[in-house]
Amino acid sequence: MTGRYSEDELIARLFAPIAGPAGLGLEDDAALLPASSEPMVATTDMIVAGVHFFADDPPAQIAKKALRVNLSDLAAKGAAPVGFLLSLALPPDWTNDWLAAFATGLAEDAALYGAPLIGGDTASTPGPLTISVTALGRTSRFAPRAGARPGDAIFVSGTIGDAALGLAVRRDPALAARLSPAARDWLLDRYLLPRPRLDLIETVRGGASAAMDVSDGLVGDLAKLCRASRVSALVEAPLVPLSTAAQEAIGLSPSLFETALTGGDDYEILFAADPAYRPPQGVVRIGAIVPGAAAPAILDASKTQMIFGKTSFSHF
Amino acid sequence: MTGRYSEDELIARLFAPIAGPAGLGLEDDAALLPASSEPMVATTDMIVAGVHFFADDPPAQIAKKALRVNLSDLAAKGAAPVGFLLSLALPPDWTNDWLAAFATGLAEDAALYGAPLIGGDTASTPGPLTISVTALGRTSRFAPRAGARPGDAIFVSGTIGDAALGLAVRRDPALAARLSPAARDWLLDRYLLPRPRLDLIETVRGGASAAMDVSDGLVGDLAKLCRASRVSALVEAPLVPLSTAAQEAIGLSPSLFETALTGGDDYEILFAADPAYRPPQGVVRIGAIVPGAAAPAILDASKTQMIFGKTSFSHF
Repeated sequence: MTGRYSEDELIARLFAPIAGPAGLGLEDDAALLPASSEPMVATTDMIVAGVHFFADDPPAQIAKKALRVNLSDLAAKGAAPVGFLLSLALPPDWTNDWLAAFATGLAEDAALYGAPLIGGDTASTPGPLTISVTALGRTSRFAPRAGARPGDAIFVSGTIGDAALGLAVRRDPALAARLSPAARDWLLDRYLLPRPRLDLIETVRGGASAAMDVSDGLVGDLAKLCRASRVSALVEAPLVPLSTAAQEAIGLSPSLFETALTGGDDYEILFAADPAYRPPQGVVRIGAIVPGAAAPAILDASKTQMIFGKTSFSHF
Repeated sequence: MTGRYSEDELIARLFAPIAGPAGLGLEDDAALLPASSEPMVATTDMIVAGVHFFADDPPAQIAKKALRVNLSDLAAKGAAPVGFLLSLALPPDWTNDWLAAFATGLAEDAALYGAPLIGGDTASTPGPLTISVTALGRTSRFAPRAGARPGDAIFVSGTIGDAALGLAVRRDPALAARLSPAARDWLLDRYLLPRPRLDLIETVRGGASAAMDVSDGLVGDLAKLCRASRVSALVEAPLVPLSTAAQEAIGLSPSLFETALTGGDDYEILFAADPAYRPPQGVVRIGAIVPGAAAPAILDASKTQMIFGKTSFSHF
């Protein structure tokens, strides 16, 4: 197609301005990261149009989502970003304008989170837009999934379920109509874009015996943390932090509580820590690690174990 | 679809056995690479079925190609691999058998090249199989693209054009029929799988002022190296090393010499070095870096500049 950037042009015009020193101007075959006394943390996530996002979502938002889901993983490990690599498979109908808006969103987040672009690849695809990001970070103390010990308390940051309820609102106009505009907007916004909790890196480094980000639903992700740590858990559902918007939605439709606990895209941090640990504001205790191999038990207000139809969200 | 591995199963059964210690059993959200006194080198390449390979190619071969194109970039930078991350977007019709064969090929190469799997992601896609690999390595001396100086000699490893001629043989049954079986098999084989020149890491570290791998054709890639270095070059085409199979093909059809010089998928190493540098066996001098901003001039046996229809292969 004429009138579109060549691969060299789009790199030079759109992506090179986002590159950090380690990216060598995106003119080399590889990034070069200086030696450090801290270990390096590496994580990768791929998102596909029609699977993880809508093809007609705003391009800046797609770019931010692709980067943020990776930064969320770094945050949960106690790692500060040093940069990221981006691979982009573009469908036949891409335009310069689309790609410029995508790059603008990426540039905003690269600056916001101190995570410069350091390398990448572009390819054409007959299929949907596909974006793979690999984020690299460094940490003085890595918080593994596998470090939880019986007796540890379980903590979670922020509020849980907003993104999953935002998706429910998007899919259910009747629900949307019954919510207050403020609650509706809050939930929809939380669904659109993750907010990686890089502000909690020091918290994770200081306190967590085990940590992970909540991306596939609190209940399912806690089960993964427990499986990796060879332990089980008890969670008191009434302790799970809910936004006022989520409370309003659940008040209208109580079954949405299950959606909140098992839906995905929270991008908050779930961690285990010594029970004497005092969390910072905005981080709350929701239960305890216990011995055993059973799936975590989620107890309702009457201490009855809740049974879920589906404990975890999977895009796979 | 029933009877297929879940995401957890395929990670545990097929990919965890390929994981190195930094991969934490593929049970964590990120890889953890120990601190080192050497800088880290990071590179990424994405390949798409129907664009970079045929969807019905043997799965082990697809896996190897995805990894090797990245290892080739590390080799050209003088970096020894420390591991790689793999993102896989699987089309609707994937099977356990296909994926097991893919993982077997990956395991063979991970062992062969000392490059363990350290992380990854799996997604489903309605489109073609899409594979993104990010390879990480370390080097005591990084060979940039941008370091070539006027007066440097230009060297290339191995033989040039075999893969491009292999593709020509695959597309042209008449050509295939005229070649000796040995030449035909050699060229086809060189097209199927790159051989990353990790054996030349010390050569690159020791001698190269600038280096890159030859993946998009010798002429076009030399132009990129010159552009990054703000220099030009003179190449004597008769010095470009050709295999006996390539010589046979070019003897049958002289226009294939252009294919050899401009076709892709060589995965040899092109580098500039002091003219006093003595290369090891299997690495030959093909020309010199000169001042200027012009595209490199390729001179034939009569010192006439060759004109090419297309200087570089692009999958984009």
